[in-house]
Amino acid sequence: MTSSRLGFIGIGLMGEPMTHRLLEAGFSVTVFNRSPEKTRSVETAGARVATSIAELVAEVDIILLCLANTDAVEEVVFGEDGIAKQGRAGQRLVDFSSSDPAATRDFASRLQAECEIPWIDAPVSGGVAGAEAGSLAIMCGGEANDIEALRPLLAPLAFRVTHMGPVGSGQVTKVCNQMIVGCNALVIAEMMALAEASGVDAPRIPEALTGGFADSKPFQLLAPRMAADDFENPAWHVRTLLKDLDMAVAQSQRSASAVPMSGLAAQLFREHAGQGHAESDPATLIERYRHLPTKPSK
Amino acid sequence: MTSSRLGFIGIGLMGEPMTHRLLEAGFSVTVFNRSPEKTRSVETAGARVATSIAELVAEVDIILLCLANTDAVEEVVFGEDGIAKQGRAGQRLVDFSSSDPAATRDFASRLQAECEIPWIDAPVSGGVAGAEAGSLAIMCGGEANDIEALRPLLAPLAFRVTHMGPVGSGQVTKVCNQMIVGCNALVIAEMMALAEASGVDAPRIPEALTGGFADSKPFQLLAPRMAADDFENPAWHVRTLLKDLDMAVAQSQRSASAVPMSGLAAQLFREHAGQGHAESDPATLIERYRHLPTKPSK
Repeated sequence: MTSSRLGFIGIGLMGEPMTHRLLEAGFSVTVFNRSPEKTRSVETAGARVATSIAELVAEVDIILLCLANTDAVEEVVFGEDGIAKQGRAGQRLVDFSSSDPAATRDFASRLQAECEIPWIDAPVSGGVAGAEAGSLAIMCGGEANDIEALRPLLAPLAFRVTHMGPVGSGQVTKVCNQMIVGCNALVIAEMMALAEASGVDAPRIPEALTGGFADSKPFQLLAPRMAADDFENPAWHVRTLLKDLDMAVAQSQRSASAVPMSGLAAQLFREHAGQGHAESDPATLIERYRHLPTKPSK
Repeated sequence: MTSSRLGFIGIGLMGEPMTHRLLEAGFSVTVFNRSPEKTRSVETAGARVATSIAELVAEVDIILLCLANTDAVEEVVFGEDGIAKQGRAGQRLVDFSSSDPAATRDFASRLQAECEIPWIDAPVSGGVAGAEAGSLAIMCGGEANDIEALRPLLAPLAFRVTHMGPVGSGQVTKVCNQMIVGCNALVIAEMMALAEASGVDAPRIPEALTGGFADSKPFQLLAPRMAADDFENPAWHVRTLLKDLDMAVAQSQRSASAVPMSGLAAQLFREHAGQGHAESDPATLIERYRHLPTKPSK
């Protein structure tokens, strides 16, 4: 498998450490990134830098994507100079991006029709730390044979690779994960504000609830920052959870499966993003629930 | 401290194992329970069984309550033959029940006025397993001195005792805990149903998300039962989470602190309870989101 030549498109926060781990595992990796200055670190570690997607596609067996959103995936695959223009039977495409599930199914059937390349959706969970440590959880959609064949390639990246069903199922599973995370962030915010307004020593809430039924990784990240008004240096972003909750609502519409909690959560995130917090840490959600002084009426 | 004579009122699912642990730690414990047959096990283990609350109050230093709800607490403390009728200065009352925070503050000031007994609210988290293992988390409200004096008594019951603020603050903290748990149960239900309706191999969701940002104790309990339609032998009850979410809404009204997610969750739990599921396991929440065959119109 290390004889497979890999092409990695999207050398960002996640793609860079993932590429480093693939290089360390002995893979030959060609990379492409729209902003070429971001490829320097992986180039130093042994990656070849392609100057176009066409050049990358020409020389690899497996094409890996790790892009910001569904639109970026569509542009890289189906745009001018896109993968679909250059791809050939025998290649495979693995999309680590978190993309819309229905768009993923559409992309997969178009790519199959245009150049016989199977699509494996493989969104990841675990963040930058997981990417650096090779401890991501990867949720795959696609043909079982294709996913089995990819396991040696995914091994340096993940502590677990789960095959969730046909193409798109990995993306649905990622959306499912983010429904829990996004809703939980909002509940933690309204809960911390309620504690403060009720005269509780709110900075003790994280200690009091750790290890119990209310505990989770988002709770560990968010509750102490909320209690301390520590909103500098966002560890993650309001806009990301809004995007994920919007995908949950879209998937709810397609599958006729109600998601009342996630639907409300999407609107509350939209309200917060619209008030200038799209790039803020989700810990800032508590500010929506805190009391402000009453303004004098005019 | 083991020379303190304890009186434990409410020998139920939680009170029974807690009393056993206090007896094992060397405390002298007198117990009272409305249904006397439930006291046999602790009597065998060395507890004295009082035939009335008055008899219990007459012979103990510290009165412990572990009752089903706020009304039961009010009846035991302020009813005919209640604690307030018999209590004397120098005694203390510790309420392990999960009661309404505002009612708790009211009860505390009435008991202080009537017989100079300080109230410590000390609701617990960790369930029956935690009560048996002495690994509860206890969230206390009350005077710091009173809570410090109780630590030797609480040590056999808890792995952590946190002082959250003045009387009632323990109850607010428990409500905060349950806001997260109740909302999470609903989000897990709508998420599992969405996965099923989207063609995902839903029984693999627990494995795929374990250890990640979506993971929690409720997720570990609920997601596998939901995927397997395993609703027999409820591990916990819809009515309990409904009661807790209703307390969150009431506290929101008193403190003028908005809880939109918990407010919706309370109504969704009410709908589910109203459809015959009050005594069901919260895993049954998934049934509200699953597709049923369309009924023919008439």
